[in-house]
Amino acid sequence: MTGRLVVEDIRPRTPGPDRYAKAIVGERVRVTAVAFRDGHDPLAGRVLLRRGDGTVVCSCELVALGNDEWEGYVVPTGVGPHLLEVQAWTTRHGSAGAVLDADTATDLTTSDPVRLWVDRERALVGAWYELFPRSFGGLSGVLGRLPDLAAMGFDVLYLPPIHPIGVTFRKGPGNTLQAGPDDPGSPWAIGSAEGGHTAIDPGLGTMEDFRELVGQARAQGIEIALDYALQCSPDHPWVHEHPEWFHHRPDGTIACAENPPKIYQDIYPLNFWPPEEADRVALWEACRAILEYWISHGVRIFRVDNPHTKPMAFWEWVIAEIAARHPDVIFLAEAFTRPKVMARLAEAGFSQSYTYFTWRTQQHGPEGLWAYLEEVSRGRASDYMRPNFWPNTPDILSGPLRHGSPAAFALRLVLAATASPSYGIYSGYELYENEPASESNEEYLHSEKYEIRRRHFSSPGNLSPLITALNRIRRSHPALQRLHSLTMHPTTNPAVIAYSKRSDDGDDVVLTVVNLDPGRAQEAILTFDPAGAGLDPSRSYRALDELTGESYDWFGPQPFVRLDPAVRVAHVLSITQGGPS
Amino acid sequence: MTGRLVVEDIRPRTPGPDRYAKAIVGERVRVTAVAFRDGHDPLAGRVLLRRGDGTVVCSCELVALGNDEWEGYVVPTGVGPHLLEVQAWTTRHGSAGAVLDADTATDLTTSDPVRLWVDRERALVGAWYELFPRSFGGLSGVLGRLPDLAAMGFDVLYLPPIHPIGVTFRKGPGNTLQAGPDDPGSPWAIGSAEGGHTAIDPGLGTMEDFRELVGQARAQGIEIALDYALQCSPDHPWVHEHPEWFHHRPDGTIACAENPPKIYQDIYPLNFWPPEEADRVALWEACRAILEYWISHGVRIFRVDNPHTKPMAFWEWVIAEIAARHPDVIFLAEAFTRPKVMARLAEAGFSQSYTYFTWRTQQHGPEGLWAYLEEVSRGRASDYMRPNFWPNTPDILSGPLRHGSPAAFALRLVLAATASPSYGIYSGYELYENEPASESNEEYLHSEKYEIRRRHFSSPGNLSPLITALNRIRRSHPALQRLHSLTMHPTTNPAVIAYSKRSDDGDDVVLTVVNLDPGRAQEAILTFDPAGAGLDPSRSYRALDELTGESYDWFGPQPFVRLDPAVRVAHVLSITQGGPS
Repeated sequence: MTGRLVVEDIRPRTPGPDRYAKAIVGERVRVTAVAFRDGHDPLAGRVLLRRGDGTVVCSCELVALGNDEWEGYVVPTGVGPHLLEVQAWTTRHGSAGAVLDADTATDLTTSDPVRLWVDRERALVGAWYELFPRSFGGLSGVLGRLPDLAAMGFDVLYLPPIHPIGVTFRKGPGNTLQAGPDDPGSPWAIGSAEGGHTAIDPGLGTMEDFRELVGQARAQGIEIALDYALQCSPDHPWVHEHPEWFHHRPDGTIACAENPPKIYQDIYPLNFWPPEEADRVALWEACRAILEYWISHGVRIFRVDNPHTKPMAFWEWVIAEIAARHPDVIFLAEAFTRPKVMARLAEAGFSQSYTYFTWRTQQHGPEGLWAYLEEVSRGRASDYMRPNFWPNTPDILSGPLRHGSPAAFALRLVLAATASPSYGIYSGYELYENEPASESNEEYLHSEKYEIRRRHFSSPGNLSPLITALNRIRRSHPALQRLHSLTMHPTTNPAVIAYSKRSDDGDDVVLTVVNLDPGRAQEAILTFDPAGAGLDPSRSYRALDELTGESYDWFGPQPFVRLDPAVRVAHVLSITQGGPS
Repeated sequence: MTGRLVVEDIRPRTPGPDRYAKAIVGERVRVTAVAFRDGHDPLAGRVLLRRGDGTVVCSCELVALGNDEWEGYVVPTGVGPHLLEVQAWTTRHGSAGAVLDADTATDLTTSDPVRLWVDRERALVGAWYELFPRSFGGLSGVLGRLPDLAAMGFDVLYLPPIHPIGVTFRKGPGNTLQAGPDDPGSPWAIGSAEGGHTAIDPGLGTMEDFRELVGQARAQGIEIALDYALQCSPDHPWVHEHPEWFHHRPDGTIACAENPPKIYQDIYPLNFWPPEEADRVALWEACRAILEYWISHGVRIFRVDNPHTKPMAFWEWVIAEIAARHPDVIFLAEAFTRPKVMARLAEAGFSQSYTYFTWRTQQHGPEGLWAYLEEVSRGRASDYMRPNFWPNTPDILSGPLRHGSPAAFALRLVLAATASPSYGIYSGYELYENEPASESNEEYLHSEKYEIRRRHFSSPGNLSPLITALNRIRRSHPALQRLHSLTMHPTTNPAVIAYSKRSDDGDDVVLTVVNLDPGRAQEAILTFDPAGAGLDPSRSYRALDELTGESYDWFGPQPFVRLDPAVRVAHVLSITQGGPS
């Protein structure tokens, strides 16, 4: 129902009704709306942030942007469900004092409320590291790796499934169909006689070992993230206890997973819509119970395997159920899938998503980094989808990393760590592991999914110092902890990409410049307007490379950079007015 | 609530809930949606068009477009409220037979319905002519102009207000404050002792004369459109009968209209939100009663004066009230106003809108014709906003028409008549009236708003032959009766603009090429892909200029054109395969 004024088109918001846009505690959330009325009297307005119980968290005056658009800011103080409302009214006082003015405004009009889910900080900001515990001798072996991960500045340690692995049709090295007696199998073939999704593979350790890992990690500032992979090996207890939860072939046997022409003989997918409604309810509740079980053991982050192979309605239900009880739980969607599906999973409630970053290697063009960074930071879906940039995963060795030089690994790392508030690497990245399974296969040679890999992390010349530096810079620069402020800067050389970010208060400005060509030195003139970064354009300004400590005194909007991979692949520059005047 | 499949993002639709996208009877409406499911099984789907009572008008199979997008088509058969629904389901039969398949689909999922208002054809397609009856000696004098208008092919004759005009503060020539005893005043200063919005100015004639005009016009294929201008002169009966419907100054006097720094002493605006709710209801009902009165006298088209100065809530209410009783009524919004307001008025229910066409004179740039034609034909708002292009109005003599040559008038006419299914001209256009009130004033010298103007329409060399030709081509080419199929074609010369349209069945293709420079000949090579127009690109094709009868046999995607204003300003080309093979 339209009121006396039109107050509509609120952002952030989701395309669908009754779903949540997203923010984190302490984030300055920019809210925009369209507001106007008939006639020529001036308007004033405000934006209100309400908790789920209706209490107002904050109220901020709106400022006119022109074209009947207005903006204001709110700052959430606690996690959970919130509502945004925009109010506007005719004022006789101009915009000054407008917030108080509202109390006597006779034509005050309130927009339809927009839902906003507020997460804790880690839903937006975090450095992730992924490792297979079995390659470290199990959970207790991982304890020994924690101090290095903490020293490198990682926030989240993500473990692929730690559950018992099936033996029936167990995969051998390189995804072959015959496993030898000592082959460990894929951790995603979950379940054996020793248990299912709530059990720990005895080869990895005990529940006590797991509790110890969670505790020691927490003490060192690291959270453990578990894999939530809703599928079963043929030996999973559910196969016998609940055959009705699986797909059956006409001959009565249970169907294995297929992604034609691939067949996954070691995995049975679950049938989320069994013929009987009671069976559906029981299965969904059992899936929820897995999450509740690990939550009761201290886990608050889940990396969700292949969410696009399960019904959207299930995700909406299970995430809402968990969020209502545990609003601090974070879900990362492994949504390397179609664009519409990826965005829709975020709308369904996932806190963050893997992205196409892994395959975005050039600057320009429809599949380039420029367009992609603008899309993930400012596109419509950025109201509710948060990226997590991974240069590699156990499944994906792509682009310049294939047979890549250390410079290739360094440049992809800098891009991920500075462009997205959340990023992650899979173990071995710091050692420049670069051998693909084949020229046509995106997986690794000797994929750790099927084999145990022992690594020498202290090998000289590895990437740890750069990782450490980047994570330190990320923590000390609030600009890098935000998504929406990302601004692309044109350069005169397509091999040199440049973008900057600002902190909520505008005081912290970080300009990142990366040479996308690991093979040779590249030069470029950037377009960087100091006034756009809040600086006085009539004075020089200082660009301090936080990676090296070198600083450059620049003047004007066209600084020059030269990046030689033999020396450095990137500048991560803190920009201040502090140059000589 | 999400179903077993995701079926969302239906277009056409409005941004706001519970409002109507638009179509006309017989139009092929393209419907798109996003639909997908978990897993890899193929989908099928259909789009349903339902009448307000739920009965299905048509059901059409969906075709996959890629990226999880689907399209289908529906064709409305009657006016009034409709619903669009999209259904999708998992199929075992591929897409063939999918529509029947739906009946046994176990996971069939239906989208939320989207509202579609179906109008009669004139809401989208029409050639309008505006004249002041008093310049023809009143309503009976207009009868004598009807045969010419019919011969020129006009569909709608729009009359500025025909009601008694106030005498208090009556405006003199050129909007001066002192009217002489013989000055007629502005027709928009409505109401005198002789009556208000339901009366006819005795100087123009009687209600019997009006009925005669409506009847004779209809007999010649022309509909009469009246002005709906909700404002009053100080002498309007409402001022005395209902002072509570007006704005009062602190001293108790009624406030006149202001658009600072302009003051309209001869007009009192209505107060659509008086302090007492009962007064508001009475005023809104009185405004509705005006429409009902003229509807009862055979009027079915209203051109609404300055809708942005009345509340959006009023328009939503009054248009819905009228549409429910008289779904064949058409409202044209005089919305030469801010972009957000213009679109929102369309969403509120206006059938069509004036546009910024009047000020779009160059091809390129953010305010150019290229961007604007794409916006009005394909932008989000084109789902519910239909343009009506006017090269001039009694208020606006702009751009190349000011002191303009006949070629300037011809080229603006061709643009309006071919780019938009609805267009209109204000009387005098065909005589090249080109004198502005002043160099800084967009109005006409000797504005007809304040003076009677006698014209000699049969003066030699006038624009009537071109108008006649264009309206004939518009009627014989269904391509020109549609909006969404407009496609821009790049040219090598910014002074030459080119665009094509196709009919719903694709068989009729009209390519319009206009020289935007009335002063000199311009040449250009066009980019026109014959395959995109449904032609065999390996053969030549024929471009028949419907204005001259000349034809050109073209081959390939880069035809050359030369437009010399001394000979012609434009080609309006019917494209067929019919060239020599």
